[in-house]
Amino acid sequence: MDLLFLGTGSGVPAKHRNVSSIALKLLEERNSIWMFDCGEATQHQILNTTLKPRKIEKIFITHMHGDHIFGLPGLLSSRAFQGGETPLTIYGPKGIKQYVLSSLRFSASHIKYPIHFIEFNEDGVIFEDDQFKVSVKKLKHGIPSYGFRIEESNHEGTLLAEDLRALGVPFGPLFGKLKQGGTITLEDGTVINGKDFIGPTQKGRIVTILGDTLKTVNSVELAKDADVLVHESTFNHNDVKLATSYNHSTNVQAAEVAKEAKVRMLLLTHISARYLAKDVQALQNEAREVFKNTCVMHDLKEVNIPLERKGVEN
Amino acid sequence: MDLLFLGTGSGVPAKHRNVSSIALKLLEERNSIWMFDCGEATQHQILNTTLKPRKIEKIFITHMHGDHIFGLPGLLSSRAFQGGETPLTIYGPKGIKQYVLSSLRFSASHIKYPIHFIEFNEDGVIFEDDQFKVSVKKLKHGIPSYGFRIEESNHEGTLLAEDLRALGVPFGPLFGKLKQGGTITLEDGTVINGKDFIGPTQKGRIVTILGDTLKTVNSVELAKDADVLVHESTFNHNDVKLATSYNHSTNVQAAEVAKEAKVRMLLLTHISARYLAKDVQALQNEAREVFKNTCVMHDLKEVNIPLERKGVEN
Ligand SMILES: [Zn+2]
Ligand SMILES: [Zn+2]
Repeated sequence: MDLLFLGTGSGVPAKHRNVSSIALKLLEERNSIWMFDCGEATQHQILNTTLKPRKIEKIFITHMHGDHIFGLPGLLSSRAFQGGETPLTIYGPKGIKQYVLSSLRFSASHIKYPIHFIEFNEDGVIFEDDQFKVSVKKLKHGIPSYGFRIEESNHEGTLLAEDLRALGVPFGPLFGKLKQGGTITLEDGTVINGKDFIGPTQKGRIVTILGDTLKTVNSVELAKDADVLVHESTFNHNDVKLATSYNHSTNVQAAEVAKEAKVRMLLLTHISARYLAKDVQALQNEAREVFKNTCVMHDLKEVNIPLERKGVEN
Repeated sequence: MDLLFLGTGSGVPAKHRNVSSIALKLLEERNSIWMFDCGEATQHQILNTTLKPRKIEKIFITHMHGDHIFGLPGLLSSRAFQGGETPLTIYGPKGIKQYVLSSLRFSASHIKYPIHFIEFNEDGVIFEDDQFKVSVKKLKHGIPSYGFRIEESNHEGTLLAEDLRALGVPFGPLFGKLKQGGTITLEDGTVINGKDFIGPTQKGRIVTILGDTLKTVNSVELAKDADVLVHESTFNHNDVKLATSYNHSTNVQAAEVAKEAKVRMLLLTHISARYLAKDVQALQNEAREVFKNTCVMHDLKEVNIPLERKGVEN
């Protein structure tokens, strides 16, 4: 599980920061990619990565501002052009379906794969299967803007095969029985309970990706105990008035949310083009004074989200 | 007057060829820029040029395929963001207005400058002022696709000031009178007729920019005697069947049009990503066997279109 930042700028594209898009790579987990937002030229950024558009399974849209959606029609068309045939689901605020369908209709685009739409206009769970649950809450940004909390199911412990072999359990059907929690008796009379030979459950990961927003309590709730929080940081602390007037957050506000939510790692994105490289460094340092494990993202930066190998702690 | 190619690829963006867009730079003529088509990430390409979005006065759309229009909403938004306040007119096939307005509405984009729309669905003149006339004719491309013929008015000859000074005409109001074709009498009795001291009229330039098309007679009519013909060349001669089945032209067909229309210069664009650098070289050579003055364009290539300084010849 990795987050690949395709665009980390705000509002309009700049030479070194494109408008918003993030890929959540779930290649090991489900051989697919989930995208979050899709600003113009997201498909161009993808050309500089190993991402395969046909592997995109879901696209989540935080809000309808142009710098978060104008890349959708092109990406969907190119996915078809490049032989994508599997269905794709788009989750977004009310309006996303009509926007996409009308863009495709006006441009006479023929998409051969099915596109499903899940529109939401209130807080709740928008997707759930055995592996993942995705829920949304509304943020504060002038127009409806949402944050996503992606919760991975716990990974059940695996059979401690080496321990069993040491006890003389032969490979084969007995292993299967033990794995299902059954009990077996060896030739020497030893009774072995499968439940005693299952490794610890590994806690599923939590990834929180927020849309553009002012500081708000829903951000903290979405990010509670997350492994990673992706938060906008359009402005630095000095420009807090500007941030508020534009319905955006500062680096320090993002760090405060991370701290209150007790996340493991804070990744800042949606950085205003007004800041030069040294300003961005300062912006990061300033946030770290509030929440230590903070990093400002740049375009094409990839961040791994490891499983907590030690298992469930609390 | 210069043509700046912003995107020279076909269908989908490739690493070294973006989807279609061309800027006609009319900086000396009217301190403005006219755009032809606006594929996704046209505004990103502009970041690599000296073009100022606020100077874009008109955008002409050849047809509604996504690779020719998906960059419009973003470019229009960014033009507003960057302080563009002057009106802008968009010319395009029926549907362009609703496409643009719905994209801007869905994305809650606030554009402060006026956008005018001129939609067409038949051949005719779509713009005319003292300086330029633009007319369209329908091409053949499955969906309505048009070509543009941009005709510059002739440049009237200027007063031959040095000749007049040699005859002893003093600078001042007399020059003005001569310029308007009046007659003056010098102190020594010499009579001078202004009409005899006007340099030759310089012929206005003709630029023809075609949308995607099969070979068709309207292409030749639009390009008649043009200084420059911009023609798609999605495929090479060997792939003519493919070209026809996709409603596109080959390099050789484009060259035939150039030859029949007796243009001065043929610029090929909309090149399929299937061709590698050496194939593109071969594609150019093959076209040159039919029409010598042919060049394949690449992204960010700029071509000057000079005035024929010798004046009207025929
Ligand atoms: Zn926004
Ligand atoms: Zn086309």
